[in-house]
Amino acid sequence: MKPVIKDNMVLKPFTVGWDPNDGIMDDPDNHVERFLSTLTNMFYDADAAERFLKEHGDVLLYEVYEKTIPQRDGEIQFCSSITHPGKIGAEYFMTKGHFHARRDTAEIYYCLRGKGYMLMELENGEYEIGELLPGKTVYVPGNYAHRSINVGDETLISLAVYPGDAGHDYGSIETSGFKHVVVEKNGKPEVIENPRYGRMKA
Amino acid sequence: MKPVIKDNMVLKPFTVGWDPNDGIMDDPDNHVERFLSTLTNMFYDADAAERFLKEHGDVLLYEVYEKTIPQRDGEIQFCSSITHPGKIGAEYFMTKGHFHARRDTAEIYYCLRGKGYMLMELENGEYEIGELLPGKTVYVPGNYAHRSINVGDETLISLAVYPGDAGHDYGSIETSGFKHVVVEKNGKPEVIENPRYGRMKA
Repeated sequence: MKPVIKDNMVLKPFTVGWDPNDGIMDDPDNHVERFLSTLTNMFYDADAAERFLKEHGDVLLYEVYEKTIPQRDGEIQFCSSITHPGKIGAEYFMTKGHFHARRDTAEIYYCLRGKGYMLMELENGEYEIGELLPGKTVYVPGNYAHRSINVGDETLISLAVYPGDAGHDYGSIETSGFKHVVVEKNGKPEVIENPRYGRMKA
Repeated sequence: MKPVIKDNMVLKPFTVGWDPNDGIMDDPDNHVERFLSTLTNMFYDADAAERFLKEHGDVLLYEVYEKTIPQRDGEIQFCSSITHPGKIGAEYFMTKGHFHARRDTAEIYYCLRGKGYMLMELENGEYEIGELLPGKTVYVPGNYAHRSINVGDETLISLAVYPGDAGHDYGSIETSGFKHVVVEKNGKPEVIENPRYGRMKA
């Protein structure tokens, strides 16, 4: 039985352990697993995603472990964000990405392991890349959609922390995608314009 | 020149590196250092603090490295919190501790190194201890004064994250102290009632 946390609940102090090497939380309230089969449309080369599925079967792209915290202003949400290594065509494995429902809320990512890019993009398409390397903190300001991208060979693990009432808004990411995608070119990550921007569900 | 961050400023994404082994941030906007000489009254055995100063000279009890983030709702503040090992009499080196000025705001501590206790205390004196060990996250709910205590032999290093508008309230800690203190007894940390509670400045 998972605890039922109501938004008007008063929380007591607690401690949760998790392994910095694999990101697995000892006693999570929630474990999200995102498999390729449900996210083929997320990659700009949807044909490559279908081919990948046929050749390799379904794979786990990323996972999140979290405790349930009331979704209200003043609280702090935190989770371990785990993105596995791999590529669909030239595009690296990544998280779906999202805006915050409350757009003016920030988030920080503290990288524990691996090598990644944090793609941050405003609604107008302006973007910034933050490098995720062990010991680095990326500050994602409000109004930026953000996505973790694993550009290395091992699992990318970060601690993500954001305001209690930030919420998630996946809507425009699912339909339009990010304007930019990160692909491997000559063995190195490179940011290119998303050829399918605006029609990810087309 | 340090950047001047105004509370109505729009921040751009940024990345900051810091060393998980010593907690030192590459390019902090602010480095706080707290020496014993300015905090002798913080320890319940003020005589022991004076003796320590005479015998060993001044020592650095704890440090904080931080970036300057606008102090507003929706932002995320973060810092590295570094508490050095040692004792004043039987009481371990610790941070001053504080309530948040906005009392209903939470905070999390992610421990990177060392061994510590997070003492969390309500105004009515009820307390909880969270263990700070590498990989553990302590969740400090709103309304709890909180203090990091180094109960180990090496430096205690945590990443602390809290809401943008939480603020700090040291007032009642400076005058009354915490109702509980953590001391070494038979080689182990133990929580006892503070003999000088309510008259730390007496």
